Parts: sequence; structure tokens; C-alpha cells
Amino acid sequence: MKYGYFDDINREYIITTPVTPLPWINYLGNEKFFGLISNTLGGYCFYRDARLQRLTRFRYNNVPADMGGRYYYIKEEGKALWNPGYLPCKTPLDKYTCRHGLGYTIVESEKDNLSSKLTCFVPLGENCEIHNLTLTNDSSTNKNVNLHSFVEWCLWDAMDDSHNYQRNLNIAEVEVEDGTIYHKSEYRERRDHYAYFGVNHEILGFETDRDQFLGQMRGFDNPKAIEDGISHNSIAHGWYPIGSHAIELSLLPGESKNLIFILGYGQNSRDDKWEGKNIINKTEARRVLDKFKSFEAITLELKSLNDYWMNLLGRYQLESQNEKIDRMVNIWNQYQCMTTFNLSRSASYFESGTGRGMGFRDSCQDILGFVHLIPERARERILDIAAVQFEDGSTYHQYQPLTKLGNNNIGSGFNDDPLWLIACTAAYIKETGDKGILEELVPFDNKLGSEKTLFEHLRRSINYIINNRGPHGLPLIGRADWNDCLNLNCFSTEPGESFQTTSNYESGIAESIFIAGMFVKYGKEYAELCYRFGDMNENDKIMTHIKEMEEAVYKYGWDGDWFLRAYDAFGNKVGSNDCNEGKIFVEPQGMCVMAGLGLENGFAEKALDSVHERLVNDFGVELLSPCYTEYRKELGEITSYPPGYKENGSVFCHNNPWISIAETKLGRGDKAFDIYRRICPAYIEDYSEIHKTEPYVYSQTIAGRESSSLGEAKNSWLTGTAAWSFVNISQGILGICPDYDGLRIEPCLPDEIKEYKVERLFRGCMYVIDVKNTGLGKMEITLDGKMLQDNLIPVQDKEICHLIVRV
Amino acid sequence: MKYGYFDDINREYIITTPVTPLPWINYLGNEKFFGLISNTLGGYCFYRDARLQRLTRFRYNNVPADMGGRYYYIKEEGKALWNPGYLPCKTPLDKYTCRHGLGYTIVESEKDNLSSKLTCFVPLGENCEIHNLTLTNDSSTNKNVNLHSFVEWCLWDAMDDSHNYQRNLNIAEVEVEDGTIYHKSEYRERRDHYAYFGVNHEILGFETDRDQFLGQMRGFDNPKAIEDGISHNSIAHGWYPIGSHAIELSLLPGESKNLIFILGYGQNSRDDKWEGKNIINKTEARRVLDKFKSFEAITLELKSLNDYWMNLLGRYQLESQNEKIDRMVNIWNQYQCMTTFNLSRSASYFESGTGRGMGFRDSCQDILGFVHLIPERARERILDIAAVQFEDGSTYHQYQPLTKLGNNNIGSGFNDDPLWLIACTAAYIKETGDKGILEELVPFDNKLGSEKTLFEHLRRSINYIINNRGPHGLPLIGRADWNDCLNLNCFSTEPGESFQTTSNYESGIAESIFIAGMFVKYGKEYAELCYRFGDMNENDKIMTHIKEMEEAVYKYGWDGDWFLRAYDAFGNKVGSNDCNEGKIFVEPQGMCVMAGLGLENGFAEKALDSVHERLVNDFGVELLSPCYTEYRKELGEITSYPPGYKENGSVFCHNNPWISIAETKLGRGDKAFDIYRRICPAYIEDYSEIHKTEPYVYSQTIAGRESSSLGEAKNSWLTGTAAWSFVNISQGILGICPDYDGLRIEPCLPDEIKEYKVERLFRGCMYVIDVKNTGLGKMEITLDGKMLQDNLIPVQDKEICHLIVRV
Repeated sequence: MKYGYFDDINREYIITTPVTPLPWINYLGNEKFFGLISNTLGGYCFYRDARLQRLTRFRYNNVPADMGGRYYYIKEEGKALWNPGYLPCKTPLDKYTCRHGLGYTIVESEKDNLSSKLTCFVPLGENCEIHNLTLTNDSSTNKNVNLHSFVEWCLWDAMDDSHNYQRNLNIAEVEVEDGTIYHKSEYRERRDHYAYFGVNHEILGFETDRDQFLGQMRGFDNPKAIEDGISHNSIAHGWYPIGSHAIELSLLPGESKNLIFILGYGQNSRDDKWEGKNIINKTEARRVLDKFKSFEAITLELKSLNDYWMNLLGRYQLESQNEKIDRMVNIWNQYQCMTTFNLSRSASYFESGTGRGMGFRDSCQDILGFVHLIPERARERILDIAAVQFEDGSTYHQYQPLTKLGNNNIGSGFNDDPLWLIACTAAYIKETGDKGILEELVPFDNKLGSEKTLFEHLRRSINYIINNRGPHGLPLIGRADWNDCLNLNCFSTEPGESFQTTSNYESGIAESIFIAGMFVKYGKEYAELCYRFGDMNENDKIMTHIKEMEEAVYKYGWDGDWFLRAYDAFGNKVGSNDCNEGKIFVEPQGMCVMAGLGLENGFAEKALDSVHERLVNDFGVELLSPCYTEYRKELGEITSYPPGYKENGSVFCHNNPWISIAETKLGRGDKAFDIYRRICPAYIEDYSEIHKTEPYVYSQTIAGRESSSLGEAKNSWLTGTAAWSFVNISQGILGICPDYDGLRIEPCLPDEIKEYKVERLFRGCMYVIDVKNTGLGKMEITLDGKMLQDNLIPVQDKEICHLIVRV
Repeated sequence: MKYGYFDDINREYIITTPVTPLPWINYLGNEKFFGLISNTLGGYCFYRDARLQRLTRFRYNNVPADMGGRYYYIKEEGKALWNPGYLPCKTPLDKYTCRHGLGYTIVESEKDNLSSKLTCFVPLGENCEIHNLTLTNDSSTNKNVNLHSFVEWCLWDAMDDSHNYQRNLNIAEVEVEDGTIYHKSEYRERRDHYAYFGVNHEILGFETDRDQFLGQMRGFDNPKAIEDGISHNSIAHGWYPIGSHAIELSLLPGESKNLIFILGYGQNSRDDKWEGKNIINKTEARRVLDKFKSFEAITLELKSLNDYWMNLLGRYQLESQNEKIDRMVNIWNQYQCMTTFNLSRSASYFESGTGRGMGFRDSCQDILGFVHLIPERARERILDIAAVQFEDGSTYHQYQPLTKLGNNNIGSGFNDDPLWLIACTAAYIKETGDKGILEELVPFDNKLGSEKTLFEHLRRSINYIINNRGPHGLPLIGRADWNDCLNLNCFSTEPGESFQTTSNYESGIAESIFIAGMFVKYGKEYAELCYRFGDMNENDKIMTHIKEMEEAVYKYGWDGDWFLRAYDAFGNKVGSNDCNEGKIFVEPQGMCVMAGLGLENGFAEKALDSVHERLVNDFGVELLSPCYTEYRKELGEITSYPPGYKENGSVFCHNNPWISIAETKLGRGDKAFDIYRRICPAYIEDYSEIHKTEPYVYSQTIAGRESSSLGEAKNSWLTGTAAWSFVNISQGILGICPDYDGLRIEPCLPDEIKEYKVERLFRGCMYVIDVKNTGLGKMEITLDGKMLQDNLIPVQDKEICHLIVRV
């Protein structure tokens, strides 16, 4: 069952009912100001940090769900109060569509021959949301419309805001000037920022005190002030500040009126905070309100945003016969990659914005799918990430986006982390050719004076693994590797204790075959960097270590039909056929084969066949099988989940592309594409009532066969699945791979893809690549009409080139 | 305006409308299991720790407010769905009363000739809430009633529950057996406890999945399952677990039916968790359900609870001509003292239960008003508190109730803290005569091997002050003294930074006259302990220090018309007539005079006159005047509040009794009583629409004259005001004062109190004390007919004695 459809021309997903299985959201903003917006106009916005600088309040896990957002109330005499987004009033609408586009959302609705079009977006370079509302009288009689806007202010720190009432109920302050409502809580003390909510129209009145607006014991669905037709012009002093304008509009038959609401963030320098005693300096807000006061200005601004996205996405465009792949590659997967790059794992409808900072591992991987979009931002991010590494090569597991400092609460000891830095650095250089990044000086733990080159950071990353190996010569796992929930050194027995940061059993022997695979894969990347930009001795040394590691994997990391997952703190196997549960794990199969392990001795094929046999369900590849039915403290959090959920045997989407890419290493295009397809949003759109999350983006987890809700997804949007899926389809399957000396063409296609065209901007040149899947079994490539001997297309010193590829 | 009335006979406050200005709550439970319950049956319950072991979910700052609780839905065919407590359906009731009593709440309501009586309480010695529901058919025709119960489970850690959705939406698990719903999330892993919700009646069906019960986009006010008349018998797997029973009842005209719902907590030993594969051991729940299955059992249980409270409160009973004072002294003030002792500042409708642990200073002061009720628990608490002291006499500022360990996040350096330990220890020994507590061995910072006697702890407390004095010989203030918001060493400029724990300016010269007053007061208490139970040398030494401190206060701590508040980090005066704002602070006036400072040289009288002149408003004594209108980083958080709120010039009730007690030191009974009366809940009941919080308990803060909402209170229930007000009225005004060698009688009465009788249980003897206020100016006391020479009544070796006192 579907609740909407893709509009590929306009690059939108069009939702045709407000009652989707879960709120289906979009993100506004790409730079510093962000909004989360659902198809019923719920959500919130923030400046740079979803916890510390949140403008509007949002209640997660609310009843009813998704209450709180950008609400407009429309009232005609004698008729029901309604909202353009259906919520909160839930008055049935005569028409409704929500169009989630690239950085904007448009909700069009109609009730009683009054139609509404609300366009929400964050303009480029500005720190505000624009809500552009057009009301049209579609009837043949005059209409008098009372319109009320509504946002609820958050007292900035969203965590504190939701807990510390004994302080917070006393601090709210606002100002109102020229119809604009300024939220200035704590501005009197240390804040130099404020929020504002203005409109380019005369107002009848306003409210800034929530209780005055809503009335006692009332929800957002029937505000007392609207019911009574009264504006109290209330000024909030403590309690709960809001912003609400009351506006009266007369509409002749056929007449439209347009209103522009601006919900923004303003900041002043510390010595220019005030324009009078306790009166905040509003220069910034006035500038923005003035800039966006006309419909023409807004229209241009929205066009600029569209152009911006057209330009970005134009860097990789696909035309195949398959609209599902096309829309994912050309629009939604790239769009989600941008979102994960921007937000890391901080703020979604599942991530409350109050918890995690930037993940080291997360951000490194996000770059893999993002680097072609805005390489300069990827570069900056890589250097930020590297700066939270310690001198010994280990790293903080997370860092705070505002301060860029490592997060002491989480600490370090996730032993896969250092290798991901190599992954993103290599990807960045392959994309840009900018080997200069390797010479950038980067501190350790952000300590002044500790700066070494990024290259040295990578060397320490590698050496950290080499220096931390266990009895089988395999890498020690530490607190956890990629699978945060496989905790072989925790042994926690206390409820609520962190499985990751409470390590009380340091045997020094729990080893990860997954990290072994990573070491081979990214060790080779590092070796190649040494070979190209460093020294050959280092290259040789590392290649020797890789050889050793490969042997260790073959000797101790192979279970007979698949790769083992780990050795636990007692030296027992994890992910072995000898185990009664958790016999096979997906991660080492994907990573080891991606690393090239087992390609020559048949292990790779066997491993992937085992994956297909044991882990694949209709919705993807499960993380492990059979699921753990009981808690096993020597394995940690993974066994804390009920069977079929999360790491305990759900389809944990992030690792699905690894299996697909691994299949391409074996040249099995059909199998690779089959795995790609199973979790691909566009492919599961038809099962939205089961899948529940947005059909235009990937989710983190989809309940597995041993769960009671097979196919039900959770945690949409902010997942490494986005980046890896884009690598999978764009490079692994379609085979357009950036490399140091050019673009490498190596498709691995399913039978069903017969031909396609990719336009790929690479180092300033647009490569127009026509691929025909002839089933020849060999590849022929012509570049601008000339046959090539190799599949590596050198960097072109022109704006456009044409390739014809036959495979 | 009132919203109810006191029923002194039944020791209840009877609320006559569900629509009170704020939710008016009560507490259930005294030992380990606690419930917060509002007059609309909102709230939640927990076992021992409101954050870590919360049974049911509650959303603070919700819209509508106070949503979530113990909900019963009553439905007759063709009639509106309603709730006994009005919320959540808000169906108007034909009758409604809510009786908050001592440890129980009874809501009686009626709709369409169907009446409901719901009695909620936590039985003594058990870990559950009983909800005893009686439905009566008051009509003349048969009634068929569909009844649905509802609670929403919290996933135990209330903080994690409200933020960590990417994990938490995957872990919910339940079992249902014999109509009892068991919530067992995380029981599969490290928890050995579960919650349950059962009923002593056959059920038609049940729901444990919130979405199945409520339906999509619906609130608690119109559950879909009830509307549809369907029980899905849903089993929650992840998402949002609830407990709801569906029950059908037939009622003949005049017939009543009684149902007993039990909402409980069960715990198993770790090696006896299961009774089958993944089936929890339910022995404990079955025992409780069986124990409370009959109406007779419940009735007896409620009577036991009443007896328990009668017995406790019987330890201090007053009969005066003034019903307001009587009800506060006999019922509500003592009741609130028990609540603050139990809960510290953790869980109220303003304290979210997720933040603060037990405050060192808070708990010491709570004991002052609680010690006569259950001295044994006070003793245990004192030793717990002392164990978080450091070797140098300083202390952690907070400790965790579950672990009893000091809270590192808050740390130490609140320089008044150590002296409060003397205050409560002295009060405990005066109450009980148990000098043995002084010889109890107590560790420092809970470190094994560091144990010293409690007496030695007190010595270090005193010495900490002596060793930490500034240039005027006055005590250094550290992070803050009693006024957590007067932060003279913080100088914070970063938004959101803690004002208490971020000390970046340690001049070592910021001094507190308040602590100086404390040192004199509690130094004398310590000296007396030395004199009585220790050594005279120590006594002499301390008395010398006290003399020095008194001189320092007179020389450097007197501003001309009142006591200075402090010297800041630059040596500038705080709370001086020389300041342009914050000229006078209440705290040093109260504390210094209570300490006896200025009694002989007229300073005391001048200081209190200045308080009356400058700080008193209709609702009490303001903390300071004039309020700070701008942030002053050298003063800290106090200037972060808008004028008239919280520490910035509200009536911060905690210190009002200090002024009243200080007045008794001057013998000004009318003034003492006037101050007592202004914040006394029973006296401001008539202004409930202004005051807003419960008229039966004290609140922390009441907005002051410079605010925009004079008289509006916040943060009811958990405030040191309770303990100090009880000390004020019971000892300071009524003059029944426990002392080491007996009960000291020293009333200081207003003219309007002409006579009263106090029954006071003291060391096993009930002192029946008749006091007549003759205006003689001297005191005459007879004990069992014999005239006494002294106002100290020796400890009586009998069960009852009679005193007649004429003053």
C-alpha cells in the first residue's frame, strides 16, 4: 500500500494523505539553520546544534504523535477550524497533498472552497525558515478568514528544556515589535542570540503566552483564544512562551492573498546586544524580514534553492530504463547523503537531538557518499575528525559539533574507528586529486602543539591495529567494532549501565574478524597512499602486515562456510556454526570479501552463498542468525534486544550494501543487484503500510524474521546506509569509480539492466558515460570516439567528455 | 477564590473541581514505592528512584497539561465516554470531588446516574498502588458498563526513556497471564524487576500496545479500541507498551460493584528470575494480587494506613482557636515534612525526577522538620549524609539515593554545607537523647577504611569553615552558600554553562555573611555538643572562634541598617545600601539574628525592621530588593532571572521562617506570626487563583512585587520551607522545643493566640501542654500540678504528663 508517489520531474515525493503510518519528514536547511518538518507540518528547527540551540519545542513520543510544529489555524465564521497540514485540529480536508522536495516542503490543502498553499524552506545563506502561505477563495462569495500562526519556543537547550522546570518556568521572556515576536529567554544573561517570528502583514493581535493562547487543559487542537476570538496580546513572563499572530483576511471570489512568515535566528556581538535598557538589538531580524517581505523575493529565493540542488545533484545523474534506480541515484539517495553528512546521527524523528555528537566512524562513512557533492566540506570534516584522534592512533568515538572536541563520556576504544579515517581520506583524494590534504597539520585530541600531518595520523591509525592484536594475530575488538552492540569486554550485570563504556573485563584477547577485514581493505588503501605519496618502505611494511593478517583470517577466521565474527574474551568463537545461536554474522562476510579476502580460495563465494542461504529475507539481509534468545553478558548489548530487532537479527541496513559490493567483487551482478533492491526505498514503497517509514529514504533497521513485525522499519534518515548504498549503486553496480588517476569504469550489472547513461562530474569535467550491458563478458570503452585499452579513464582537461562502454 | 476546602476531621483537602489553576497533587507511599497523583488522576509511580526505576510514563510540560496517569474509562451504550478524574476525556461530570488525604487520594464522581469512587493508595510495606474502584448504579434501570483501565509503562530509566528512541523503540516486552499485564522490558537482560497491572475481576480483553489501544493520531481522550468496542489482546513488541484491561459490568438499580486494580513492582533474585524459557517468575506479583483481592482486605489496609498516620502525627498535635494553624501543624505541614524527607527534591510536578539526587544541605534541613516523626529514619539519613563528607570537612553537594555515593558532576565547594550536618545532628540528639550517634563510625567519601566517629565529622565541618576564611575573617563562600544562585566565583559568559560547577575565578576572597551567621549559630550547637559529650578544650577553642566571628560580623558584616550579604571576588559589598540593586538580602538578616547576633547591640532589631520595611509583600518576605535588572557575571545566576522571580527577589519561602524565628529571638510575637502567616498555605487558600499551587502545602517560590505576577507560586511540595516552617511554628512561636535534657517551653506568641494545647510525644512521654497567653510578660509553668522554676521540663519517666503554661 502506498500513501503517495514519486514525482521525479520535480524531484519530490508527493504524499496524498496526512495519515501516513508514521510522520514522514523532510529536512530544511543545509548550512547552519535546520528544520525537521513532517507531512503534517510537525517538527522543529535549530541553529547548528539540535540540542543546544533549538528554536522551537518538540515532544518526542508524544500522544498524539507528532504534536508541535509550524501550525496555522484557519477559521471562517460558522465553519470548522482547520489547518493546512491537517494536524493539530484533524479537521478533515477536502484536498491535501504534501510535497517533500529538496530542502523544501509544500503542503497544499483545501477546505470549504478555501485553498491553502504553504511552502516552507530555509533560504540559502540565511538562518531562518520561510513559511509562505497563500490562501485562495475558490468560492463564488466573499470570504472573511481569521488566520492564526503558532510556534512554541524552546528555551534553547532542548535537554534542559525538557527537565529543569524548577528553573525554566521562571525565565521566559519575549518582546513584540511591529508584529514580530522575539523570543529572548536568557538573552538578559549570557546568550547573545534570539529567535523571532514575523509576518509581512498587519496583525490584529498576538499571543506569546501559551496558556493564554491554548487555554487551560486544552491541546493544540482547539485554542481558547481562537475559539473566543480574542487576542490577549499576552507577554510571556516565565512558564511557556510561544509565538502566535492573529490576522484577518478578506478574500473576494477567486482572490488569493499571500503571507510570508519568517521564523528566524538572530545573533549579536556581545558588545552590541542591546538597543535600549533590556531591549534587544534587532538589526539582524529586521534585515531578514525586510529581505523576504515580497512574494517576488521569496519566489526567487526558492528558485535559488532549486538551482543549488540541481547543480549539486547534477554531479552524478543516471538515466536507465529503471525509474526506481534513477530516482534513488539522482535524487533521494544523494539527498539523504547530504542529510547524514549535515546531521550525523543527531536529529531525526528517532534521534532526539539531545544525545549523540558527531560519530567518528559515522562521519567518516558519511563522507563516502557525500564527497562528490561538496568536496570542500568533506575536506574540512576530515580534518575535524582527525583532530580527535589520540597520539597512539586510537580516537574519541564521538565529538561535539559546536566545540569539535572529543566526547569524554563516550571516550575511545572502538577499535575499528581509526581505519575509517583512512577510508574517507582515500575517498576524498580519489574524488579530488587533492593529495595536499595529506600534508595538512592536524593536532591530536585538539591539543595545541601536537600537530602532525594527516598522513602521520593515518600511519598511527594503521599502527594502532598492528599494535593491538590478540592471540590469533587478529585485531583486538576493544569496546566494540562497527557493531556497537557486540561488546566482548563489558560483562555488564547492572541495569541501565552502558554496554560500551563500562568495560570491566579486559582479557586482552577478544578479537574481531571484521576489523581484520577492514585492516586488509583499508590497509591496502593506506599502502597505496604510501606508494603514491609517501614512501615505499612504509608501503612494503604494511603489505607484509596485510599478508600476515590475511593468513590469520584464513587460518583462524574461517568457519568452514563463512567468516567467523570474533573470538570472545575467553577465546570462544562468535558467529560460528558451533554456536547454538548467532551462528553467522553478516559484517565479516561483507567486509572480508570487499577487502578481497577469499576471492582466490573460494571462501568469498562460499561466504556470500551462506549469507544468501541463511540471512536474506524479503526486506534485506539480516545481521545474524539465529537470533539470540537470551542475554549473554559475554556478548553484550546485541543480546539485550528481543530476537529480530536491531543488532539481534534485524535487517540492519548499513551492512547490506557491503554484501552487495562484495557480490560485485565476485562479479555476480544479479546477486549484487538483488541485495541492493531489497532495502531500496523506491522498491519497497508499495509496502509502506508494513515498512512504515518514509519510502524515499533508507532506515537503520528493519525487523527480521524472528521478530513479530517482519519488514517494519525504524530510525529512518540518519543512517550510514545512505552513504554505503550510494557507493554500492554508483560505484559497485554502475561501476563509475573515482580513482587517483582518473575515473575507473567497472560495472557489475544484473541482467535486467541493459543500458544506462551516467553523467558524472569529476575534477571539473563532465563525463557522459553510455553503458551497454551486452553480456559479452569483457569490457570495451571508447573515449570521445577512441577505443581505450584500460578501464581507467584519465583525468580530462576539458569540460565534457563522452564514453561508450560495452560490457 | 477557592477550589476546595479543608476537611480537618478526615485530614483531607477536598477539591471540588477538576479544573484547578494547576494540577493539585498528592503523594502515595512512604517507604520504597511512591506515586504522584493529581486531582485528575494524572502522575506516575516509581520504586525508590524516580529516574532509574520509574514504572509509568509521565510527560512534563505536556499539552494539554498533566496528561498520563491512572486512567479508567467508563462507557455506557449511547452515552459519552468519561473518566472518574475528568481527564483525559474531559466529559463534564455531574459530580466530582477529589479528596487528598494522608497517603491516599479518593476521587468520587458521577455521570448519568452512574457513580464512581476511586481510592488510590500504596499499602504499608508493599510495593504497589491499589486502585479501588466502586461503581454504583444510582438510576432505576439496569446498566451495562464497559470499563477500560489504562497505564502507560515507562522503560524504567525515565531519562533514557524520554530521549533514546533509537534503542528504546525496540525493547518493549510484556506478558499477560490470568488478566494481569506484566511489563518486562529489559528483564531479558540485566533487570531482575518487572511491573504488573492486575485486577480482581474477569476481563473481556486487554491491550499492551499503545497504538492498538489509542489508534493513530489520537490522544488519551478518545481511544480507538474503546470507540470500536474491540480488544485486540495486543502484545507489545517494541514501540510503546501500556496496560489496559477491558471489563464488562452489569449493575442492577442501586447495585454497586467493586474492583481492585493493583499496579505493582516485583523483583526476583538473579538466580530465580525465570519460571520458563523467557517467562518471568511472577511469584511476588501473585502474592500481592492474592493478598489484595478482596474489598475487606483493602478496607483493612487503608485503615492501617490511616492508623499509621494518626500515630505519626499524634506526636505533635495542636488545639488552638485558630483552625488554619491547627490544620497546618497537625496535618499538612508535618505531612509535607515527611514528603520532603522521602523525596528530597527529586520528584514533584516541578521536579522531573530525572535530575538531582539527595541534596546534602536539603536533606540536613529536611530532618529538622521530620526528626520527631520517625527518629530512626532520621538517624540512618544523618549517617548516610555524613558519609559523603570529605576528610577536610567539605562535602559533596549531592548524593545518589540508590548508591548513596556523592555526585561527582556537582562536586563540592558549597561552603555552607558542612554546617548543616551539625544542625541536623544536634536536632536529632535533642529529639531522642541518643548521643550514641556521635560515636558511630562513618567513612569519608564512602571510602572503606576512612571511618571516623560522627563527632569527628562534625569537628571537621567546623574546622572547614575556620580554615576557609577571607580577608575580613568571614567565611569564604565557595561555589555558593545556601543561595545556590549567588555565585561570586563563577563569572560565566557561556550560555547554558552551570553557574555552580563552573568556577573560573578563585580570588579566594569572596566571603559570605550568611555563613558567618551559620557559623555562630551552629558553632554554638557544636560547642554545646563538645561541652556535653566531648571535651571542654574543644568547646573553649570553638567559643573563641565564635567570638572572633561575631566581631568580624559586627565590624565588616554590618551595613548600618542591616547585615551585609557578602563580599564579592573583588572585595566589593553585596547587599549593601551602597549598591544600586540588591541593596538588602533576606538570608543574613534571618540567620544572623537566629544565631543571636545583634541581640545585644540593637543590630538585630534594626535588621528585622529593615526587612519589614523593604522586603515584605502580601505573600511573604522577598529575597532581596531592589531586584537585579541586568546580568552581573560577578554575582552569577541570581541575576539571570527576570526581576521578581526565583532568587532575584521573589518570596523564596525557605528563608521566611528564618525571619519569623528571628523575630521570636527579639520576642516580637506579632511580627513573627505575621511573617508565618503570609506564606502559610491555609492562609492563602482564598487566593488560590493567584497563588495557583496547592493550598495545603508550601511552594518554593512566589513571584515578588517586581514581577508581572505577584503572588503566583511555583515549585510546590519539595522545598525546605516545610521543615523550617514546622520548626518555626512548633518551636519558635508555639515554643515547644526539644532540648538535650528535656522539653524547653518558650512560646513567643502574637496577641491573637490567646490559648492553645499541644500534645507532644517526647522520648516516650506524651506531654500535654496547655498554654495561656495572658500577656503577663513572664512565664509560669506547672508540671502535673507542681510549679516549676525553669522552662526546661526534664525528661519524664512516664507515659503522660500535663503542663500548664502561662505566658
